[in-house]
Amino acid sequence: MTQPCGAILAIGDELAIGQSLDTNTRWIAEQLTARSLHIIEHTTLPDDQHAITDAILRLAQHADFIIITGGLGPTADDLTRHSLAEALSEPLVEDDRALAFLEDIERKRGRSLTPARRSQALRPVSASIIDNPTGTAPGIRAVLTTRARVTHIFCLPGPPREMVPMFEGAVLPALPENPTHAIRTRILRCYGIPEADVATALAGLMRRDRNPLVGTTASNAIISIRIRYEGEPGAADSSLRETERQVRAAIGPYIFGAGDDTLPAVTLGALRAAGDAMLVAESCTGGLTGAMLTEIPGSSDVFLGGWITYANEMKSAHLAVPAADLQSPDIGAVSAHTARNMARAALANAPDASRGFNRIHSIAITGIAGPTGGSDRKPVGTVFIAAATRDNDSGVLTDEVRHFLIAGDREDIRIRSATTAIGMTLHRLRNSSPETLLWQVAPTDRAEARA
Amino acid sequence: MTQPCGAILAIGDELAIGQSLDTNTRWIAEQLTARSLHIIEHTTLPDDQHAITDAILRLAQHADFIIITGGLGPTADDLTRHSLAEALSEPLVEDDRALAFLEDIERKRGRSLTPARRSQALRPVSASIIDNPTGTAPGIRAVLTTRARVTHIFCLPGPPREMVPMFEGAVLPALPENPTHAIRTRILRCYGIPEADVATALAGLMRRDRNPLVGTTASNAIISIRIRYEGEPGAADSSLRETERQVRAAIGPYIFGAGDDTLPAVTLGALRAAGDAMLVAESCTGGLTGAMLTEIPGSSDVFLGGWITYANEMKSAHLAVPAADLQSPDIGAVSAHTARNMARAALANAPDASRGFNRIHSIAITGIAGPTGGSDRKPVGTVFIAAATRDNDSGVLTDEVRHFLIAGDREDIRIRSATTAIGMTLHRLRNSSPETLLWQVAPTDRAEARA
Repeated sequence: MTQPCGAILAIGDELAIGQSLDTNTRWIAEQLTARSLHIIEHTTLPDDQHAITDAILRLAQHADFIIITGGLGPTADDLTRHSLAEALSEPLVEDDRALAFLEDIERKRGRSLTPARRSQALRPVSASIIDNPTGTAPGIRAVLTTRARVTHIFCLPGPPREMVPMFEGAVLPALPENPTHAIRTRILRCYGIPEADVATALAGLMRRDRNPLVGTTASNAIISIRIRYEGEPGAADSSLRETERQVRAAIGPYIFGAGDDTLPAVTLGALRAAGDAMLVAESCTGGLTGAMLTEIPGSSDVFLGGWITYANEMKSAHLAVPAADLQSPDIGAVSAHTARNMARAALANAPDASRGFNRIHSIAITGIAGPTGGSDRKPVGTVFIAAATRDNDSGVLTDEVRHFLIAGDREDIRIRSATTAIGMTLHRLRNSSPETLLWQVAPTDRAEARA
Repeated sequence: MTQPCGAILAIGDELAIGQSLDTNTRWIAEQLTARSLHIIEHTTLPDDQHAITDAILRLAQHADFIIITGGLGPTADDLTRHSLAEALSEPLVEDDRALAFLEDIERKRGRSLTPARRSQALRPVSASIIDNPTGTAPGIRAVLTTRARVTHIFCLPGPPREMVPMFEGAVLPALPENPTHAIRTRILRCYGIPEADVATALAGLMRRDRNPLVGTTASNAIISIRIRYEGEPGAADSSLRETERQVRAAIGPYIFGAGDDTLPAVTLGALRAAGDAMLVAESCTGGLTGAMLTEIPGSSDVFLGGWITYANEMKSAHLAVPAADLQSPDIGAVSAHTARNMARAALANAPDASRGFNRIHSIAITGIAGPTGGSDRKPVGTVFIAAATRDNDSGVLTDEVRHFLIAGDREDIRIRSATTAIGMTLHRLRNSSPETLLWQVAPTDRAEARA
C-alpha cells in the first residue's frame, strides 16, 4: 500500500500579490502530517478561474485528496465554485440546504437574500455541501475521477475561524487512514525560562538522530517542547511517555501545561481549583492582560475585572497612586513602588463580593512599551510587575515585585508583559515561584502586610 | 508586449509538512507586486528532487522568471542545485569563486571544508553564483530556454536574513523592467457594513472584466476594498482615482481609511485632531478594546484608560450600576440600560485632567460572548454598546446605545464588539453615524442630558 497523499491549494489575489499572509495552508499541513498523510505540494493562485481549474486537474493526477481554501465568498472574484465545476465538467446547481441556511441567516438579521449571497448556495451537480457552523460561506466536497486516480476535493472558506471547524468536522474524518506508520506528537508548554537554557538542559534529548525527536519553538514568553515519535504505532505511547518523563525531570518547574493548554487557561483553572479570584491593574498593557484572560470561556467564575490606568491621572484617581510619586524623578509611573501600589490598591478596591473567595489576587503592570518614552535609566522594555494576594481568612497580604527588561518591539513587550504577569500569578498559586524569571534584571522584592 | 510574469517556489520538508511557516514567499510577492510584475503562482514542495525539477519545467512554460528559496544548504536533503541542473539538462560543476568563499568562512572558524559544505559550491555549468553577504549558502542564477519562452531562474537560501539582502542586491536589479505596463493597487478600509451589501452596492465596479478591478475581503468587522489597475502606466493614477471616487460615492460613510490604516489608529488620530480624549468601560470584551487602542504607538495622548467590569459587582462598585438593575429580569447586566449607565459613569469618573480636552468620549460594551450564558431572549452574540460624549465647554452630554446580534464564536464576538465600539466613536467624531451598523438588530437609541 502506498502512502495516501494530498495537496493544498490556497486561492486569492490578496495572497498571490503578498498583501495577506496565508496561515491556513500551514495549519492544514500540520493536521495532515499529524495523520501520517504525505503532502506533495502547496500552491497559491490568484483569483483566476482557468488557473484554478488547471491546478485542480494537474494536482488530481498525483493527489488522493486536494484541500482548497478561499474563493467561496459572495463576490464576483470568488471563483472556486466555478473552477471546481469546470474541472469536473459539470454545471453548477443551487443546493437546497445551503440556500435554506443562507436564507435563515439573512432572516435572523431582518434582511432578504441578495443575488450575490444566493450565489454561495451553488455547487457542481455531483458535489455536496459542507456545513459552516461559524460563518456564512458553505464549503463544497466533490470527487474527481481521472485516468490516474480518484481524488477527493474539499473546498473551505478562507477565514481561519470558519475553515478550522469545517476542516475538523467534515474533512478530517473523510481523509484516508495510514495504519502501518504512525507520527505522534506530544507538546509541553513552558514559561519563564530562556530557550537557550531549555536547549542546554535537554541537550541529550534534542539529538537529531533520536526517536522520539525533541524540538523547541519560542513564541513570546512561551516555549513549546515538541516530542515527535515516528514509526511502528504500537510503541508510540510508551516511547512518548518516557521522553516526556525525562523532559519533566530536567525542567519541570517551568512546564505549565501540555497540548493545547495556554497560560491564561491553566491559570484560571488553578484559581478555580483554589477557590480564589483575581483582578488586574494595567498601564502599558492597556487591557491586554484582561483580554487574554477573558478570551477563555468561563473566565467570569474567577476573573472579576480591573482598571486600565493608562494616563497617570487614572492611576491617582482610581488606584490611589500619589501624584507626588508619579512626578518624583526617583519614583515615577514606571517603578517597583508604583507597581506595588497599583496591585495593593486593586485589592483594596475589590468589590465586597471578593470576600466570598478564599483569596483574591491582583497583578499590576507598568512599563515602557516604546517605541518612544525610553531613557538611559529606563530604556524601552523596562517593565515592573507586581503580584499581590490577600488571604480572606487571615487578612494577610503578600506581594512580590519584579523588574524586567523585555526584548522586542512594542507589541512583543506588551504581550510578554501580560504573559509574565499571568505566569507570576500561576507560580504563586502553585507555590513554586522561581527566584528569577526570563528577562528579569533585579532580585525579586517580596513583602507581607495586613490587608 | 505582454506583461512580465513570475512564479515563486519554496523548497523544504519543514514547510511542506507545516512545521515552519513560510514568510519568504509573501515578502517576495510584495516586492514583485510593487514592481508591477505579475505573479502567476506560488508553490511549496518537499525535498523531492524530481518534484522540484518538474515544477521548474512546468513553471518555465508560463513564467519569465522563477524565484526559488530553500534547498541550498549542505545536507543530503538540500536538492535545489540538483533539480536545477536536471531541469537545464546540464552537469553540476564546482564554482571557483564559491569554493574560495566557503573555504574562507571555514578558515575563519578554524575548520577545514567538509565534503558536505563543499557541495554548496556546485552550480549547473551554464549558471552563475549569487553572493551571500550574510550567510554561508551561495545563491544560483540560471537561464532556462524552452520553446515557450526564456525564463530567468534565481535560487536563494531559505533563512530570511540571508534571502532578503540577496534578493535586493542581485535579483531585483536583474528582473525585467516594465515600462509599458503598470500594476497599481489602492486599498480602502470599511467598517459597519456587511460584505454582501458592499458587493451589491459595487456590483458594476466588481465585474471581473473591468479595469481597475475591484475586489473585497472581510476580516472580522473590517472590509478591505482592493482597487487594482493594470495597464499603461500614464493612466494609472487617474484611473484609480476615478474608481475610488465611484466606490466612495456608493459606500462613503462606511469607509474609514486607506492603505495600512487601522480603525483604532484612525480613531485615535481623529480624537487627537479634535482635541478630545476617550475612556472605555468593558464587560464582555474584558480589556480587548483598551488593548486594541493601546497597541497603537502614541495612544497615551488621547486614551486615558478605563474599567474592566467583568463581574457584576465591579459594575456596581466602580461604574455606579445599581445592583437592583443587574438583578432585575427586565434589565440585567446585558441591556441597553446598563450599557448607557456604564458609559455615563465612565465619563462621570473621568479624572479631572479630562477637563483639559475639548470633549471626552466613552464607550461601554456589555454582552454575551458565549459559548454559554445565552438564552432565548438574549442569545450568544447579544451585545449592547453605548457611546457617550461630554462637551467640556457646554456641559452637554450626548449618547447613543445600539443593540447587536454579532455572528461568530467567542473570539469573533469579542473582536467584533471591540471593533464596533471603536467604530461608533469614530462615526461620532466625524458626525456621520449611520442609523444601522453591521449586526445591529434594533433602532439606535439616542439621548441628551446635562453632564
